Amino acid sequence: MNKLFWILVLIGLPISIIGSIFHWSAVLMFIVYCLTIIALAGIIGRATESLAIVLGPRIGGLLNATFGNAVELIISIFSLKAGLVSIVLASLTGSVLGNLLLVGGLSFFVGGLKYKRQSFNKLEAQHNAGLLIFSVIVAFVIPEVFTTTMNDQDTMILSVGISIILIVLYLAALLFKFVTHRGVYQTNDKQTEESHEEEKPEWGKIKAIVILGLSTIAVAYVSEHLVSTFDVIGETFGWSELFIGVIIVAIVGNAAEHASAVIMAYKNKMDVAVEIVVGSTLQVAMFVLPILVLLSLFFPTTMPLVFTWPELISMVTAVFLMIMLSNDGDSNWFDGLALLAAYIIMGLGFYFI
Amino acid sequence: MNKLFWILVLIGLPISIIGSIFHWSAVLMFIVYCLTIIALAGIIGRATESLAIVLGPRIGGLLNATFGNAVELIISIFSLKAGLVSIVLASLTGSVLGNLLLVGGLSFFVGGLKYKRQSFNKLEAQHNAGLLIFSVIVAFVIPEVFTTTMNDQDTMILSVGISIILIVLYLAALLFKFVTHRGVYQTNDKQTEESHEEEKPEWGKIKAIVILGLSTIAVAYVSEHLVSTFDVIGETFGWSELFIGVIIVAIVGNAAEHASAVIMAYKNKMDVAVEIVVGSTLQVAMFVLPILVLLSLFFPTTMPLVFTWPELISMVTAVFLMIMLSNDGDSNWFDGLALLAAYIIMGLGFYFI
Amino acid sequence: MNKLFWILVLIGLPISIIGSIFHWSAVLMFIVYCLTIIALAGIIGRATESLAIVLGPRIGGLLNATFGNAVELIISIFSLKAGLVSIVLASLTGSVLGNLLLVGGLSFFVGGLKYKRQSFNKLEAQHNAGLLIFSVIVAFVIPEVFTTTMNDQDTMILSVGISIILIVLYLAALLFKFVTHRGVYQTNDKQTEESHEEEKPEWGKIKAIVILGLSTIAVAYVSEHLVSTFDVIGETFGWSELFIGVIIVAIVGNAAEHASAVIMAYKNKMDVAVEIVVGSTLQVAMFVLPILVLLSLFFPTTMPLVFTWPELISMVTAVFLMIMLSNDGDSNWFDGLALLAAYIIMGLGFYFI
Repeated sequence: MNKLFWILVLIGLPISIIGSIFHWSAVLMFIVYCLTIIALAGIIGRATESLAIVLGPRIGGLLNATFGNAVELIISIFSLKAGLVSIVLASLTGSVLGNLLLVGGLSFFVGGLKYKRQSFNKLEAQHNAGLLIFSVIVAFVIPEVFTTTMNDQDTMILSVGISIILIVLYLAALLFKFVTHRGVYQTNDKQTEESHEEEKPEWGKIKAIVILGLSTIAVAYVSEHLVSTFDVIGETFGWSELFIGVIIVAIVGNAAEHASAVIMAYKNKMDVAVEIVVGSTLQVAMFVLPILVLLSLFFPTTMPLVFTWPELISMVTAVFLMIMLSNDGDSNWFDGLALLAAYIIMGLGFYFI
Repeated sequence: MNKLFWILVLIGLPISIIGSIFHWSAVLMFIVYCLTIIALAGIIGRATESLAIVLGPRIGGLLNATFGNAVELIISIFSLKAGLVSIVLASLTGSVLGNLLLVGGLSFFVGGLKYKRQSFNKLEAQHNAGLLIFSVIVAFVIPEVFTTTMNDQDTMILSVGISIILIVLYLAALLFKFVTHRGVYQTNDKQTEESHEEEKPEWGKIKAIVILGLSTIAVAYVSEHLVSTFDVIGETFGWSELFIGVIIVAIVGNAAEHASAVIMAYKNKMDVAVEIVVGSTLQVAMFVLPILVLLSLFFPTTMPLVFTWPELISMVTAVFLMIMLSNDGDSNWFDGLALLAAYIIMGLGFYFI
Repeated sequence: MNKLFWILVLIGLPISIIGSIFHWSAVLMFIVYCLTIIALAGIIGRATESLAIVLGPRIGGLLNATFGNAVELIISIFSLKAGLVSIVLASLTGSVLGNLLLVGGLSFFVGGLKYKRQSFNKLEAQHNAGLLIFSVIVAFVIPEVFTTTMNDQDTMILSVGISIILIVLYLAALLFKFVTHRGVYQTNDKQTEESHEEEKPEWGKIKAIVILGLSTIAVAYVSEHLVSTFDVIGETFGWSELFIGVIIVAIVGNAAEHASAVIMAYKNKMDVAVEIVVGSTLQVAMFVLPILVLLSLFFPTTMPLVFTWPELISMVTAVFLMIMLSNDGDSNWFDGLALLAAYIIMGLGFYFI
């Protein structure tokens, strides 16, 4: 898979550069940009992992927590710069839905086809459930309801306040998980030991940093051009901004991550799979999104923490479904199918809206 | 009780036929129709049970799953034919509320008066909770929120799509329960053994099929005439269509089933009681309702999967209450009283609306 | 702490009386009234506790259940009398939010700083979760959604009906807890024994009754004058009625109670702390609020059981967050921080609205 990523990048990156200069067909370039970003995201993921192993679990965890959604952050920044606030919110919504329902669903389903019952840390699942409720049900729902009668300035002040609180709580959650309560809520089973054995870095420290740096610059370049194709793509296929953001951008930005979650589930390492699925969701909701709200203060168009109702309700119902299916620390193919079915229902909704 | 059903049918059916021909008072006939349907539903339930035992657990389970709400399906088809779309949605809402709150409440309360604590399969309850969340919170809430700005055609396409997904997932849930994971999430206790001993069919195969066929035809006949009395009844008693659908039709269509759940709870067979309560709810939400949406395509008035807000919110809150009270696999009289109190609150709401 | 309360009362009460007669500055008097009420509430709490020990656990429990929120009830009655219906609903919302998020959060956080993990009765927490869902999610949400198209009279009839059901279910919950299922869902651990040893009444029966009576009269006097300062305070600080009710009045009315919950958590008596937090919330939602709705029938302005949307959504999300964090019967500093963060988010919302 690693090789595939490199081949895709070595073909895709030159085409991206040449195509963007000579203004090739937007539809063709859209596809090239998407594939190139997926491959680059895969390489960034590998580099981050290698670096995390070299630097030890604490700084490694922090690194994963900040670089894990780097691609999404970069695409979003270029969208913000282009004033496409609604696409940013839509793509972050799509990231939450894609992680919880599509990746979560595929992981449970594929893993469940091979194993009758798969189990993961119940206490960890309950801790994560609390964070999901906090971010999506409290921090996203409250501004939605309170700002209906508010003017734009108060809406933005409230959004900034809530964003700061989200970031503080996210950092506190990392402190809780990696420092004060490290291993306290862990069940010590073989699985953890095994995964420790395997942890040999793919690349050395310097090599990883160089690859990480270059890939990030490449993602930034391609993302900027990807964003500029959105309106042509929307017109050509009859897709709304909401559909492009929620479904297309979200899948492109998360594809590499998605693949590794499903592979982990297939290897019966459900703790890792669930960690990727829910961890990545929480990172988007509690870190990437509030950072973007704060960054938007320096852009011409500010971005309040106010979703459209369909976006918000989709996230809220996805959170309830995931919590109800995962709270027992046990998964099977049917749980996966239910999550996938929910994703298709929402995808249909965003298509027809 | 069996005898009572036969007596009611032998008196009610002739009166129904004569009364409908000679146009007797609508209020009188409404009462006669209701009682006759309740009795016929009881007999259909017995016939289905006998047949299920004869045909073995797998086909039996399937039979129960399709014929269990046959009466409701028939009444709804005649209502659809008469263009009473809102009464169909209301009566299915009422069926969900009636099953979860009224029957669930009565079962927990009556059982709880006799036994201090009653327990049922916790894992099964959690599996069912996931399905309740999927159908009511995801599949019903999403179209409600997404279709506010949609035209009628897109609303109907989305409704059809979601209906197909609901039916597929319902069939998958049966496959999961009766084939791939049969007994996997079961706790093997005495209760299950006992109930196996008792399973002797009341009627032979042929007899059961004949009774099932004739009763179904009779229900269809009476239902068609019952539906035609609704507007007179509404005017006479000052009841809204919503109240007739949610409270009256739902109770009539489910009365026989309701009785058996409460009897099971009184006998401390809580697993069976909960199975009837939640199983029947899921059948209505994931099978009867989507089938009706699809069938409505062949009727003059199509039925989208869009409830009124009071209907939807009632179902959503009922689901949360039931999940919270049953998720521990333990019930008592107070749990029952809380469910009944919720039913009364909603009944009051639908009366005054 | 007891002494502090007496000193505050002995200074605050005379100033309150003199200041209200000579019409001293509203802002100054607002502060004096608030501090005096906090101190009087502390003394009422002590007197109720003493009396509860003398009269035995059953009548004591009942006494706590009725007098526990006496101060709030009194402030609310004077607000009702002044026609400030929206401040009453806001202060009861604030009481629910303050109990669940502020006091619950502080208890978990302060306790969690000292102890790595604190545990409390899981079954009790689940029982309470059912009651929270019943009162906030069912009994408060239903009238909100159903009354949008209802006239004022029907809205009030529905409110009265739901209020009666809430009171009946609250009394049934007391019957369940103290009579029919006393100790059934208890885990017998050392904690309970310890707390029994300590239970020596601070004051004798007669003394406690006299103190209770006099303090209640004093609270009534001060509350009446506090309510009259609200409009000046609102104008001076630019606070909305909603903010005054939800944040200020709620904190003043509950401060004494709040302190004891946090102290209990610090002493690792989490069962007692959670009982104060959730018990007090349920009392406000299922007893104080419905009583006020019924009482309002005798006042010029009736009070329906209909909150503003921000109030309702805040309570609903607070209930979900608290349930998700406490359902495992385990707390830590991070759980506390998440609750506090939710309180700050809602406080910000009510400030800017």
